[in-house]
Amino acid sequence: MTEGSDDIQALIAQIARLPGLGPRSARRVVLALIRRRTGQMAQLAQLMATVAEHSRECIRCGNIGESDLCPICADPRRANGELCVVEDVADLWALERGRAFRGRYHVLGGTLSALDEVGPDQLGIPRLIGRVAEEGISEVILALNATVEGQTTAHYIAEALEGTGVTVTGLAQGVPIGGELDYLDDGTISAALRARRRL
Amino acid sequence: MTEGSDDIQALIAQIARLPGLGPRSARRVVLALIRRRTGQMAQLAQLMATVAEHSRECIRCGNIGESDLCPICADPRRANGELCVVEDVADLWALERGRAFRGRYHVLGGTLSALDEVGPDQLGIPRLIGRVAEEGISEVILALNATVEGQTTAHYIAEALEGTGVTVTGLAQGVPIGGELDYLDDGTISAALRARRRL
Repeated sequence: MTEGSDDIQALIAQIARLPGLGPRSARRVVLALIRRRTGQMAQLAQLMATVAEHSRECIRCGNIGESDLCPICADPRRANGELCVVEDVADLWALERGRAFRGRYHVLGGTLSALDEVGPDQLGIPRLIGRVAEEGISEVILALNATVEGQTTAHYIAEALEGTGVTVTGLAQGVPIGGELDYLDDGTISAALRARRRL
Repeated sequence: MTEGSDDIQALIAQIARLPGLGPRSARRVVLALIRRRTGQMAQLAQLMATVAEHSRECIRCGNIGESDLCPICADPRRANGELCVVEDVADLWALERGRAFRGRYHVLGGTLSALDEVGPDQLGIPRLIGRVAEEGISEVILALNATVEGQTTAHYIAEALEGTGVTVTGLAQGVPIGGELDYLDDGTISAALRARRRL
């Protein structure tokens, strides 16, 4: 037993399994926590237990919240006819931080992948199409990542929605705010040039 | 409220304060935990509460353990007359992983620093000198970092121990195992050359 006690070793091993962390950074985190064991560490343990117990997925959109319906689905002001489709809850959070979108979301939980055997049913695409009709959606915004998998999934959904009369849109592609042309990849520059607009 | 609930936001803020993590990585960690909320997250919260409650500093050496004396100070086989001085518990753990040292430790908890008002008393150096006499230490190994602060502290301790009859040693400096000369800094190469040994 190298690190203090069996519990400390188990704690290091658990923290090393989290994304972006490894054994070395987990040891640093655990030592920092033990130094603050009466303050931050006790609070963090309590908070983690509370979140583990109360968090649940929204039965309608897949967002994380504390009730069957997440705060966004529970808010009638967000029923503005716009539905934004995202891959992941992290993407939903990123869009909410932007404060530009005032409609509701649909979290796929991944992208179509033949290799990983993820088909339309696994992503809840039939349920998404059901929501479009039930909730009187006028526009579906496909805010999927600009990766091959994200764009394949976007095309699949756009085709599945054909004939329902709903407008299907995607995020604009172009130069990021503050971006320098010299550092952008060729694909982004071409896309920004093709989609140029009159000033 | 962008991220699910107030508790989730508080959890992200707490995790973002840990060393090596920031807001973005904290959000990734929290989402990964919520996905494993019935398994890993509940376990981790429990383990963290246990470690926060039971961890304490060894009253003799400053190592982290679960009793007044850490497992190393409680083990009579480790009383071999060698005392290894380290800056931090993380350094003690690193030496224990190496399995080369079978004596006891003394954790300073930092280095001398006039700027941060850390003097010999704050580092427990008088207590270290007391231990050398009380525990019949024959060799003090100064395993401090090869930084300016570490080496200043090492020199101070070596001087303070002068005349006590104890042997004071430091870690060898040279080429790390697996190290390529081409990638080493000049200081290390010079030190390794000066301390060259007959094969």
